[in-house]
Amino acid sequence: MKPKLFVVKIGGNVIDNPEALRSFLESFAGLKGHKILLHGGGKIATQVAEKLGIPTEMVDGRRITDHAMLDVVTMVYGGLVNKNIVATLQSLGVNALGVTGADAGIIRAHKRPVNETVEPIINYGFVGDIDEVNSKQIQVFLKSKLIPIVAPLTFDPVLGVMLNTNADTMASSVAVALAELYDVNLVYCFEKKGVLLDPENEESIIPVLTPELYASCKAAGVIYKGMIPKLDNAFNALKNGVGQVTICHADQLRQALTKNTTGTKLTIQSN
Amino acid sequence: MKPKLFVVKIGGNVIDNPEALRSFLESFAGLKGHKILLHGGGKIATQVAEKLGIPTEMVDGRRITDHAMLDVVTMVYGGLVNKNIVATLQSLGVNALGVTGADAGIIRAHKRPVNETVEPIINYGFVGDIDEVNSKQIQVFLKSKLIPIVAPLTFDPVLGVMLNTNADTMASSVAVALAELYDVNLVYCFEKKGVLLDPENEESIIPVLTPELYASCKAAGVIYKGMIPKLDNAFNALKNGVGQVTICHADQLRQALTKNTTGTKLTIQSN
Repeated sequence: MKPKLFVVKIGGNVIDNPEALRSFLESFAGLKGHKILLHGGGKIATQVAEKLGIPTEMVDGRRITDHAMLDVVTMVYGGLVNKNIVATLQSLGVNALGVTGADAGIIRAHKRPVNETVEPIINYGFVGDIDEVNSKQIQVFLKSKLIPIVAPLTFDPVLGVMLNTNADTMASSVAVALAELYDVNLVYCFEKKGVLLDPENEESIIPVLTPELYASCKAAGVIYKGMIPKLDNAFNALKNGVGQVTICHADQLRQALTKNTTGTKLTIQSN
Repeated sequence: MKPKLFVVKIGGNVIDNPEALRSFLESFAGLKGHKILLHGGGKIATQVAEKLGIPTEMVDGRRITDHAMLDVVTMVYGGLVNKNIVATLQSLGVNALGVTGADAGIIRAHKRPVNETVEPIINYGFVGDIDEVNSKQIQVFLKSKLIPIVAPLTFDPVLGVMLNTNADTMASSVAVALAELYDVNLVYCFEKKGVLLDPENEESIIPVLTPELYASCKAAGVIYKGMIPKLDNAFNALKNGVGQVTICHADQLRQALTKNTTGTKLTIQSN
């Protein structure tokens, strides 16, 4: 039997709120066994960029990353956000190791090519599409009782440059790569209690989401915007060997994993 | 016999010059065997702080680090500088792992106390004085063929905060801690060819520096300012089990280590 592994992603809105982040990290510290945390960037990069006079341009929720913006996200995600999480977790007794995809070469990527056949032509700049996750190296860390804390950055191993990368996608890719070695439980934590049937009603949590229900919700327009790539990533993980995927509130990480009655569980099993 | 280990420190002036840094990293990549790189911060933190409207205050070459400045150095040293070095080294075939003292808890420190008995009273703020280097954890990294790239930041494990820390001191502390396990060769690389007898004459390199000659040079005023804490750290390392200490130009790392005729060697052996 494979050992259990929690792959937890914490979203940007929680990163922006020090009290919410602290409370989440306390819950994460309490999870027993092997675990990995992937974090988003939050609004700090936008704020720092603004102060530095670097304009922020987003397309479909993704940040256009020119050279100046790459420096900002490398600073903010790889430095400020990652190291403050690491220092907090260390004080909570978690032997955290903060990494980007470049560190120990764990997540290799390439710069997203510009698709000139689709209008409008969008050059995302230094944005990474993942090629390979080095699951053996991550296993080495886990076996030496280290808890990887992964910033949303990968790198191009040929060019030797950092690449800005979506944290939801990284969480899914890491979970899939490690599913060969571990029984992986992937958890997306954010500021809502799960996938909601009515975005205006915080209590309208969908307890179990199947691909069919997901398709209906998209068609009805109740699942939209940033939730679509998140859920596409999540279903992709399930289809590729990840044992369980849960989407829940950052405050409910432990309840979602222990009582199994909180948040939204995804399933690809037929009824 | 203990295995050999190079502990190399690269100074801030080289960090500020992309071509010089690249050239140095190529030399570092060429060193065979176990190695660790510690890097300084350079002027980028001061430049970023200025753009963010945060004033820089230095006392004896040390940065006063209030909360806003701590965020800047955590971003710049732990993020921008560290990750760009890691990505470059990865592209040169070095399996670099970028860390701060907080990562895997490798370098624990405490906030420097304010000495109120000495005038003027100086509060350095979030500056770390090192308590402990976890040499066993660093050995675990080295045994798994990882090359630690250490940013000039430590942390307080009780408070869970990052601390700005002098890279020369970190290099010396890491070298001393690892001297129990390795035959350590500590190399300080910077923008000069060694310790100079005449700071105006780049060729006036002192090939071998003894504590007696060092004392004479200080008394004569030819060794001063930032070189004094650097050399104090370096002699301290020799007195505490480090096998060899060299101070050389960043361009001459490999010559200094292979031909043994470049830069300044420190010795505490009597003639």
